[in-house]
Amino acid sequence: MSFNTFGKLFRFTTWGESHGPAIGCVVDGCPPNISIKESDIQIELNKRKPGQSKFTTQRKEDDKVNILSGVFEGRSTGTPISLVIYNKDMRSRDYETIKNKFRPGHADYTYFKKYGIRDYRGGGRQSARETASRVAAGAIAKKVLETKLGKKFKVVGAVTQLGILGCDVSKWNDNYIKKNQLFCPDKSIIKLWEKYLLSVRKSGSSCGAIIEVRARGVPPGLGAPIYSKLDMDLAAAMMSINAVKGVNIGSGMNSAQLSGEQNSDEIFNKGKKTNFNSNNAGGILGGISSGQEIVVSFAVKPTSSILSSRKTIDKFGKNTSISVKGRHDPCVGIRAVPIGEAMMNCVLLDHYLMHKAQCK
Amino acid sequence: MSFNTFGKLFRFTTWGESHGPAIGCVVDGCPPNISIKESDIQIELNKRKPGQSKFTTQRKEDDKVNILSGVFEGRSTGTPISLVIYNKDMRSRDYETIKNKFRPGHADYTYFKKYGIRDYRGGGRQSARETASRVAAGAIAKKVLETKLGKKFKVVGAVTQLGILGCDVSKWNDNYIKKNQLFCPDKSIIKLWEKYLLSVRKSGSSCGAIIEVRARGVPPGLGAPIYSKLDMDLAAAMMSINAVKGVNIGSGMNSAQLSGEQNSDEIFNKGKKTNFNSNNAGGILGGISSGQEIVVSFAVKPTSSILSSRKTIDKFGKNTSISVKGRHDPCVGIRAVPIGEAMMNCVLLDHYLMHKAQCK
Amino acid sequence: MSFNTFGKLFRFTTWGESHGPAIGCVVDGCPPNISIKESDIQIELNKRKPGQSKFTTQRKEDDKVNILSGVFEGRSTGTPISLVIYNKDMRSRDYETIKNKFRPGHADYTYFKKYGIRDYRGGGRQSARETASRVAAGAIAKKVLETKLGKKFKVVGAVTQLGILGCDVSKWNDNYIKKNQLFCPDKSIIKLWEKYLLSVRKSGSSCGAIIEVRARGVPPGLGAPIYSKLDMDLAAAMMSINAVKGVNIGSGMNSAQLSGEQNSDEIFNKGKKTNFNSNNAGGILGGISSGQEIVVSFAVKPTSSILSSRKTIDKFGKNTSISVKGRHDPCVGIRAVPIGEAMMNCVLLDHYLMHKAQCK
Amino acid sequence: MSFNTFGKLFRFTTWGESHGPAIGCVVDGCPPNISIKESDIQIELNKRKPGQSKFTTQRKEDDKVNILSGVFEGRSTGTPISLVIYNKDMRSRDYETIKNKFRPGHADYTYFKKYGIRDYRGGGRQSARETASRVAAGAIAKKVLETKLGKKFKVVGAVTQLGILGCDVSKWNDNYIKKNQLFCPDKSIIKLWEKYLLSVRKSGSSCGAIIEVRARGVPPGLGAPIYSKLDMDLAAAMMSINAVKGVNIGSGMNSAQLSGEQNSDEIFNKGKKTNFNSNNAGGILGGISSGQEIVVSFAVKPTSSILSSRKTIDKFGKNTSISVKGRHDPCVGIRAVPIGEAMMNCVLLDHYLMHKAQCK
Repeated sequence: MSFNTFGKLFRFTTWGESHGPAIGCVVDGCPPNISIKESDIQIELNKRKPGQSKFTTQRKEDDKVNILSGVFEGRSTGTPISLVIYNKDMRSRDYETIKNKFRPGHADYTYFKKYGIRDYRGGGRQSARETASRVAAGAIAKKVLETKLGKKFKVVGAVTQLGILGCDVSKWNDNYIKKNQLFCPDKSIIKLWEKYLLSVRKSGSSCGAIIEVRARGVPPGLGAPIYSKLDMDLAAAMMSINAVKGVNIGSGMNSAQLSGEQNSDEIFNKGKKTNFNSNNAGGILGGISSGQEIVVSFAVKPTSSILSSRKTIDKFGKNTSISVKGRHDPCVGIRAVPIGEAMMNCVLLDHYLMHKAQCK
Repeated sequence: MSFNTFGKLFRFTTWGESHGPAIGCVVDGCPPNISIKESDIQIELNKRKPGQSKFTTQRKEDDKVNILSGVFEGRSTGTPISLVIYNKDMRSRDYETIKNKFRPGHADYTYFKKYGIRDYRGGGRQSARETASRVAAGAIAKKVLETKLGKKFKVVGAVTQLGILGCDVSKWNDNYIKKNQLFCPDKSIIKLWEKYLLSVRKSGSSCGAIIEVRARGVPPGLGAPIYSKLDMDLAAAMMSINAVKGVNIGSGMNSAQLSGEQNSDEIFNKGKKTNFNSNNAGGILGGISSGQEIVVSFAVKPTSSILSSRKTIDKFGKNTSISVKGRHDPCVGIRAVPIGEAMMNCVLLDHYLMHKAQCK
Repeated sequence: MSFNTFGKLFRFTTWGESHGPAIGCVVDGCPPNISIKESDIQIELNKRKPGQSKFTTQRKEDDKVNILSGVFEGRSTGTPISLVIYNKDMRSRDYETIKNKFRPGHADYTYFKKYGIRDYRGGGRQSARETASRVAAGAIAKKVLETKLGKKFKVVGAVTQLGILGCDVSKWNDNYIKKNQLFCPDKSIIKLWEKYLLSVRKSGSSCGAIIEVRARGVPPGLGAPIYSKLDMDLAAAMMSINAVKGVNIGSGMNSAQLSGEQNSDEIFNKGKKTNFNSNNAGGILGGISSGQEIVVSFAVKPTSSILSSRKTIDKFGKNTSISVKGRHDPCVGIRAVPIGEAMMNCVLLDHYLMHKAQCK
Repeated sequence: MSFNTFGKLFRFTTWGESHGPAIGCVVDGCPPNISIKESDIQIELNKRKPGQSKFTTQRKEDDKVNILSGVFEGRSTGTPISLVIYNKDMRSRDYETIKNKFRPGHADYTYFKKYGIRDYRGGGRQSARETASRVAAGAIAKKVLETKLGKKFKVVGAVTQLGILGCDVSKWNDNYIKKNQLFCPDKSIIKLWEKYLLSVRKSGSSCGAIIEVRARGVPPGLGAPIYSKLDMDLAAAMMSINAVKGVNIGSGMNSAQLSGEQNSDEIFNKGKKTNFNSNNAGGILGGISSGQEIVVSFAVKPTSSILSSRKTIDKFGKNTSISVKGRHDPCVGIRAVPIGEAMMNCVLLDHYLMHKAQCK
């Protein structure tokens, strides 16, 4: 059982509401003697934090992380690491007008039906603000994996589709992704994307996105049959992110249209190194890593908070309508990039530890 | 930790290899006093069992289930239900020629890299034969849900894309699905599908498929934030099925291309009943069921065992090639329909019990 | 896996070191709509907090609890409740002299052997300071159980043996327990206990204790075969408390010496109410509550920090000796009473929710 | 959640009723490439099986184990190992007369109150017959630990108190334990024990026992704070055995009466080896193994099935009386020795794997 806990051997438990005093998480199972500083975590949080560009929400949050336990003299001790981020720029009164209404496409309605009570301020626990905790946990997982697997290990994510606009994935450039505010991997398309996204924002509308996350330098053997498959856990990890509606491993949904010949990635050795002619499998066979690049992509639906008036009901069962003003991302998918990277790091570390337990 | 166990409150643990003496599972957490007969389980197993038509593998297995515990005088007692299916039609010698080679696209290579040992006969534990155990567990979940939720509750799956051929989902017909051997929901396309699949088989090739599973009569409120979201668990469930590479909830990957207006399903009350104008969300908002139909689809890649010669390596690291004869499904996706239904039933029961524990 | 998490459906995860900035816990699985105030938790924490009498350590801690999430307008929302207690009266320099030495009977040695690093200040994570978090979680469990089971439900603990001095358990008086600083249930023995404990303290020595915790008003049916037995979980709960070395259910270790006739508690009905002639079972049969009073007792070993010089080694492997001054409880068992009560409340709520899920 | 599953990384799930067709278990998480034969398991089962002497029940069961999966060519493959034991000597009609009555001291009453249905034949799931599955799982754990830790590792249990008769534990002799039918460690007391037990049996009464289990050659560092303490898991393991009412680690309940000086085991190095002057801690400090011998003892209550007439009620709520004839152990504690050893092996392996995951 794990309502608010993710992971098996490397576990994190998140807590906190969008407009409560703070959010945070407890990271359990971190190996001892790993160098961990608040700044290691802050770097990752800064990628996700709001208010950084005209393309995201204008809510201003430093997202300053505090380590409250589990680190002694700069190194992990093997005991739980408690992280807290204080909320600052809440404007709860913005939500007064919609406190009794359910926003279509939002979790307002289902939370109320489930619990009979909900903290409506800023979406409460439903808010994607929870994902800051994941990014913080992911930063710790990243440090551990870099320590254990060395320089060749790297996780990097990007937006590969922005609303109706795709990009040329073969032009993927890690460095370029870091340099643009849309986490776009393809320099040739960026101007078009920016123009498109500004027009979406101006019209008070929103758009979806596809995010792709790649992991390199992952040894073969991570993952486990049958109900701890690496791809199963990655699918769960990505689907647990707010607004995600689909997850692909490698060729994903498209693999339905491939022939057996197209799909099966041929294997050959060159010296002692095992190579593959293609990577339809996304680096995972039978739930276990093959040593190829692990490739996961997921779709984020458009932000539900839009300016157009939409039909809905209120908590008393009356028909009404709603139009959401206030501070919102025109495309929540953009800030999902560091979240996807964090989840990838957490799942990989979890499986690294499981593999070490059973097979080393 | 749950290498071979699925679920939280309703849990099943599967075991067994393709060519071992038997396969089976232990179902734990079944509520007491539910009427359960071997025939209830057999009906579901018969949908999945091999050798039933020219469209599937010719391996002949009765897949006769035996209940060894947990049922007394026709009713569940609340204690674990042990189910066993004896294997019969094994031809292990068929696998002698490939026992040291890794089939591209198969888990041969990764199992060997992970464990340093593997039962190669019929794929051993990697074999989709394991899924018979899931179907058996799912049959029990179905009985419980029907008892608790009544007649309005129903789970039904179908193949909605066969290789390169789609179908018209708006023509979905539950009764027709039961009547054709391809679990096709659209009568107008069946002839074309059959012709296509026979040509795939004759050429020694294979094709993928997309399966869609729908659940009706699910009350709102099932699911839980954040790391027990209903869609997260469904994604994990489906991705754990052999050869699955992608999972969609509702509009899934396509939701990236929708505008906020298109995507947000408007809500209105008609009398006391809550309705939605559309179902892009696939019946799940914020990880919690909304009372709408739950819609999950997943892609199954083409069977890896094909006649064409493919480059590969053997367990000693030598380059070689492989061509797989023997008994194989030209499209493993077809028999994935009852498996997807079973996983849906298991996840829904698990969440039904969790909701009862916390919120009722 | 649950290094720092306790419970299944009602779960809490604790974090924090004795001399870190704070300690705390995240309570997950609390039902919604339960009235919870910080003062409900503070009442229980005040029973455990140090520095309250001459019989306990002189470290001064307010143990002021802060609720950071999961409670909205005075009621639980069903989302995780994060609790934090800031540390105040740390004197870390007291520990400088022993930072490289292992105190015999303490976890210093084993933590160092396990992790290769440890926060030695005040015992770090080994410190019983962690138990404040349990008491806080237990206070929430108590509120839920009182709401669900009503007035008849009550958990009460007492010290029944103080070092070499027992008491007359037949004189157990709930009200008297609350009124004395030793949680003694037997008014006739208190003077002797106080005198004894002061002499132990003066001599720089320490003594052990036995704590008994009783739960009344627990309905029959809580608990579950085989590996979620109520007594199994209670044994685990109590053994997880610092310095506990033995746990009894009902007659406990003494049941070895009873005859079958003496041991089997006869059953009879009086009107509709089921009664038992005795309670050797401690209210639990086959791991399931019988409706009788649940009786658990556990032994707490003497405080390891004593004035006498003891032989030990340091972290470099050299033989040395140690004598511990500073602020310590002469009998840590006394402050274990509210901890035992808290663990009882948490285990009972967990099983109450499990029973509701499977059997109601 | 784990109603019928024990363990975290090394897990076993048991199933089966006393008079059902079979009992068994699924062992998950066994490392690959461990030599495992049915005879390795059979040796341990033979220690526990009934009908072997005049001191135990006369029910005859071969307890012949069958491995159905997870072992290939004599070695574990890392996949789940399914074990089954068919029941043979059931005399269900013996239970007809008591099928509606609740035996005092038995779980009859509580199972019925919980589930509203129960398989009364031979106690159904409540029967200690379930423990055969644990012994089988323990045999596998033992093989793994012997492979990983080498010859110095050994677990051995004995009966140290039989009803009102103790023994001289300082005379503990591993070899002697194996040679007598009462698992007595002290040759000087055996005649008295035998005489006593026969008289108990003749009178139709029963007696309890204390079992002590010791583990040698366990490295320091196994165990984990706070809620996966080694002693916590051992307490849970032993308390989960049928009829166990108390568990001690090292000095156990007696530690309450020790002074701080008596209790703290002094440490000294002799060469590179760390030694302790005493072992009140039972080899565990702060929940982590110290490298000393691990010593756990537990009390088993007298068999509830006795000849004397006892007051009870039936399932319709009527007062009645009961006298149990049939085949029963006069002291169930005796056959608990191999069960205690099995649980010790399972817990140690589980923690060995956890330690390897996090700290190696």
